[in-house]
Amino acid sequence: MAELTTFIGIGAGICTAISQLPQLIKIIKEKKADDISYFMVTILLTGVTAWTWYGILQEDYPIIVTNAFSVVLDLLLLIFTIKYKNRR
Amino acid sequence: MAELTTFIGIGAGICTAISQLPQLIKIIKEKKADDISYFMVTILLTGVTAWTWYGILQEDYPIIVTNAFSVVLDLLLLIFTIKYKNRR
Repeated sequence: MAELTTFIGIGAGICTAISQLPQLIKIIKEKKADDISYFMVTILLTGVTAWTWYGILQEDYPIIVTNAFSVVLDLLLLIFTIKYKNRR
Repeated sequence: MAELTTFIGIGAGICTAISQLPQLIKIIKEKKADDISYFMVTILLTGVTAWTWYGILQEDYPIIVTNAFSVVLDLLLLIFTIKYKNRR
């Protein structure tokens, strides 16, 4: 049973991680981040960092791996938003 | 220690849930969903549904509550995307 649970966690993590990629790819391709709000990226970054910490405290690997990946993605999102926001 | 962990999980869940609201609000306000991809919304919906299932199997309430809330948000996102996508 534990294996099925871990498998579901990893599958869920892959789905939610994949769903964050298009926004990052779109910003890099279009070199535009005008409709990205710093406030939201910061809130999301805070959330996935807290989830990673939560996973570590719970020793729950699907949660750690998924959210650590999201922390990296959201850091990149923040960096490219800073780089491309309001660039004419 | 368990209380701190639950508190971190709930805090993380609130952050990640809040960060999904602006996109839904934007679609409803602007009545436009052209840059939303059905594929991505479906992948995200699959992911948060699997996370909810994972939380139930793990009896992990912060994960269940956060992801159940995300399932509702993403269902609304899908419904409004269907309603407003390619509407002239």
